Amino acid sequence: MTHQVLIAGQWRDSNSTGTFQADDPKAAVAIPEDYPVSSWDECEAALDAATEAFSQLRCLDRESIANFLENYADRIEARSAEICELASRETALPVEPRLALVELPRTTGQLRQAAAAARSQSWCQPVIDSNANIRSCYAAIGPVAVFGPNNFPLAFNGISGGDFAAAIAAGNPVIAKANSMHPGTTRLLAEEAQAAAEATGMPAGTVQLIYRLAHQDGERLAGDPRLASIGYTGSRNAGLKLKAAADAVGKPIYLELSSINPVVILSGALDERSEEIVDQLKTSCLLGTGQFCTSPGIIILPQTETGDAFVSSFCEKFAAAPVGTLLSKSGQNGLAASIAKLKQSGAEQLCGASEGEGNYGGEGYCVPNTVLKVSGEHFLANPESLQSEAFGNSTMIVSVASTEQAAAVVAALEGNLTGCIYSATDGSDDLAYDKIAAQLRLRVGRLLNDQMPTGVVLSPAMNHGGPFPATGHPGFTAVGIPGAIIRFSMLQCFDNVRPHRLPEVLRDENPGGVWRMVDGDWTTAEIGKPAAV
Amino acid sequence: MTHQVLIAGQWRDSNSTGTFQADDPKAAVAIPEDYPVSSWDECEAALDAATEAFSQLRCLDRESIANFLENYADRIEARSAEICELASRETALPVEPRLALVELPRTTGQLRQAAAAARSQSWCQPVIDSNANIRSCYAAIGPVAVFGPNNFPLAFNGISGGDFAAAIAAGNPVIAKANSMHPGTTRLLAEEAQAAAEATGMPAGTVQLIYRLAHQDGERLAGDPRLASIGYTGSRNAGLKLKAAADAVGKPIYLELSSINPVVILSGALDERSEEIVDQLKTSCLLGTGQFCTSPGIIILPQTETGDAFVSSFCEKFAAAPVGTLLSKSGQNGLAASIAKLKQSGAEQLCGASEGEGNYGGEGYCVPNTVLKVSGEHFLANPESLQSEAFGNSTMIVSVASTEQAAAVVAALEGNLTGCIYSATDGSDDLAYDKIAAQLRLRVGRLLNDQMPTGVVLSPAMNHGGPFPATGHPGFTAVGIPGAIIRFSMLQCFDNVRPHRLPEVLRDENPGGVWRMVDGDWTTAEIGKPAAV
Repeated sequence: MTHQVLIAGQWRDSNSTGTFQADDPKAAVAIPEDYPVSSWDECEAALDAATEAFSQLRCLDRESIANFLENYADRIEARSAEICELASRETALPVEPRLALVELPRTTGQLRQAAAAARSQSWCQPVIDSNANIRSCYAAIGPVAVFGPNNFPLAFNGISGGDFAAAIAAGNPVIAKANSMHPGTTRLLAEEAQAAAEATGMPAGTVQLIYRLAHQDGERLAGDPRLASIGYTGSRNAGLKLKAAADAVGKPIYLELSSINPVVILSGALDERSEEIVDQLKTSCLLGTGQFCTSPGIIILPQTETGDAFVSSFCEKFAAAPVGTLLSKSGQNGLAASIAKLKQSGAEQLCGASEGEGNYGGEGYCVPNTVLKVSGEHFLANPESLQSEAFGNSTMIVSVASTEQAAAVVAALEGNLTGCIYSATDGSDDLAYDKIAAQLRLRVGRLLNDQMPTGVVLSPAMNHGGPFPATGHPGFTAVGIPGAIIRFSMLQCFDNVRPHRLPEVLRDENPGGVWRMVDGDWTTAEIGKPAAV
Repeated sequence: MTHQVLIAGQWRDSNSTGTFQADDPKAAVAIPEDYPVSSWDECEAALDAATEAFSQLRCLDRESIANFLENYADRIEARSAEICELASRETALPVEPRLALVELPRTTGQLRQAAAAARSQSWCQPVIDSNANIRSCYAAIGPVAVFGPNNFPLAFNGISGGDFAAAIAAGNPVIAKANSMHPGTTRLLAEEAQAAAEATGMPAGTVQLIYRLAHQDGERLAGDPRLASIGYTGSRNAGLKLKAAADAVGKPIYLELSSINPVVILSGALDERSEEIVDQLKTSCLLGTGQFCTSPGIIILPQTETGDAFVSSFCEKFAAAPVGTLLSKSGQNGLAASIAKLKQSGAEQLCGASEGEGNYGGEGYCVPNTVLKVSGEHFLANPESLQSEAFGNSTMIVSVASTEQAAAVVAALEGNLTGCIYSATDGSDDLAYDKIAAQLRLRVGRLLNDQMPTGVVLSPAMNHGGPFPATGHPGFTAVGIPGAIIRFSMLQCFDNVRPHRLPEVLRDENPGGVWRMVDGDWTTAEIGKPAAV
């Protein structure tokens, strides 16, 4: 029996062109559950249902959307054990602490933050010019397709993750495309999403799920006029194809592609607290077996005695750490191929698999914890291939001869989500910091000091974004509210529009106390009345 | 003698591949001044100079940028007579009132508003999470290329217009590409821009000017990694080529392409004030000989006696109005071709040129004031070709059989900058309004009531933008500060970054009283201290 898709508010047999199965990465065998590859006809049905749902959502009060998101979060919690168990089976991520204690609470937290934003409507950023009677705000854009990645089966899932929560909070219906690595997890989540939608009176088609599509159908979906926007997190190749299809018709697409997250360790910091940083780096690089979008993939440090000592200690601890199971066979193959490519480009392997070694020592799909090393000079001779992403439990040291060379290495990097500099607390690294940070700042969305990048706090000040190819536009974040919501909106201006026809957030009255920019100042007051103190 | 280009702070002979001349549209003859077509080598030089200028601009205090913009505005005013005279010769737009009394003051006003924003830095929208110590703001993105349109030689000029002011205010150098229709005007402005840059100590290469490029060099420029972003206002074809080049490398490009600015007139409004609306529509359609991006190109009104009377009166007045000179010969040819295409698609010509008529009756390049008409039914049978833009003194009536048909016509429209609905003041049109506005709202950046769209007020609440193909992204405005500035920025997050390394706007102190979102509330206070009342 092939599992059903969720279209137009109903679980129905798929009009499929084939089926697929997910793997159990620890056992390295397929899980015997069949999921459908949807046909274009099914996309048509989903697009039509989303169009209809959007026309209804636009008339719905914001409270309903908030209730839906909260009801859904409650249901995920109520079914937590089953969801985490299946997610663990499909991804090899441990139930505890990772899935049950970290990722699931993050997921429900995101949904509840999105609910609060939908309720308050302050994400709309109302701007009012009371003299000219021109008023504007962000508003729902229309049906959104969300493609989730393989590495966060809950918090970035197409039907429960950050993009989903943001798109719904803005008032858009979502067509979720499950990640093919964890269709079962996605199905359980979708069941709760649909139950919550029904319980809270959401239009049929507010949430829809398909599991897999032929590539050309994915591109056709991305370019279809019924679809207003796209959120995609995943591989660079597939993402760029969707981007091309969306760009061709001027449709906003928000991508999270590859990132190697440079970490620069300055000599004063090494003198001061080398072992502390070794431990932080090891932990960060191996979180989720290195399969974090913010995992440090390139470590830039000085070619000095302390630098060499750092590298030795790091390799020793890294090699000795338990080898985690990777998310999939293709992940294993991809990581091995990336490591091979880096070695072909001249990187030296300090620890990792021996040539021809067959058994990697871990359970299921895995690659030994791998550290590569290259000189700054060599990196600069071949920056393009030496910064290709090796997604997993691998990282590369770039050993630099000078601050200038460190800055040059950073200047040769593409856009990344994060960049980090460790420096001495006594200020002795500050000149070097300034030179390197000047280059790093422009190439990353989030600049860190003295802290590894793998923690992505849910904060309005977070930027989980960055210049291409980390994302498709350096002005937007995928994590943090209201920023994440604004992506799935359009700017709507109302010029001389009669008061009763304005959206609530743009009227003179402001019963919800929404923060609004009125005549140049931010205020929660009504127009023409001072704010209550 | 061929005029020089402005590269790296110097007027220099162009490394050109050829020359061109502008036309005097009223005399319909070339103006005997030669301007160069720059080679790719010249683009290389400009890109390198812009890169160097950007590295210096990043270290410059914000006050200097504000001073530059203000000094430049002063200089434009001091040379107003000469600038407006040449602009009038190159575009046929009248010196008074249009250029000297409206467009030039708008231009200097934009520069001064941008200066104020650069000084206050509140456009950066700082967001601070004081508990997590995560802080973010928008910041300069890097060198920006600005391509200006032909229809606003001052206020949208690549070296003095809204995109220029916004890009500079954000802290970016600008490579301006003159519009080939008014190179002389652009040269005079660039002379003042460079003089202002020197007078206020701006880095060489902050403002640069080239006049013309081969198409393939324009696309190469758009895709070059030294260029961070692009602002383009102009024809759809050329804009889409630049967009494809920029999209391919994930670079933000902001486009303003075509827009036909639907105006819907409901029956109650016709009963109430038909002649008043006729006069407003006539004036709006003929402003600048209809060469406004917000000019009403499609007028939707009921197939009724009052509707027919409106059309008769409108045609009579429209045909009797003076025929303006168009900006260029290509503008004349383009308008005539667009009218012919609309007629081939089934539109009836109510007034305009007779078949085979040679002399259009106006001065220089011109086309008679033209009104076309088509039924709603016919429009819906062929919506694609019947909504092609006819840029100039032409408009088209769509005569609809019902409110439902009006809504269907609106639903068949592509994205536009503006959309307008005239309705009765007594509420009798409100049901029809709701049906039509539901469709119109999603297809336009600015929705107006009872007012023509051609006035684009400089207001923070303005949205001069809209869904594709009006622009390339429905979340941004080209007019209005801070929105216009934010386009040319990236989102920069600082996570655990030491206080002295933070940009001023993100520090605990807030001496400038910048509006910042701190821990969920907007405030001008220092972190940890209440705001002064």
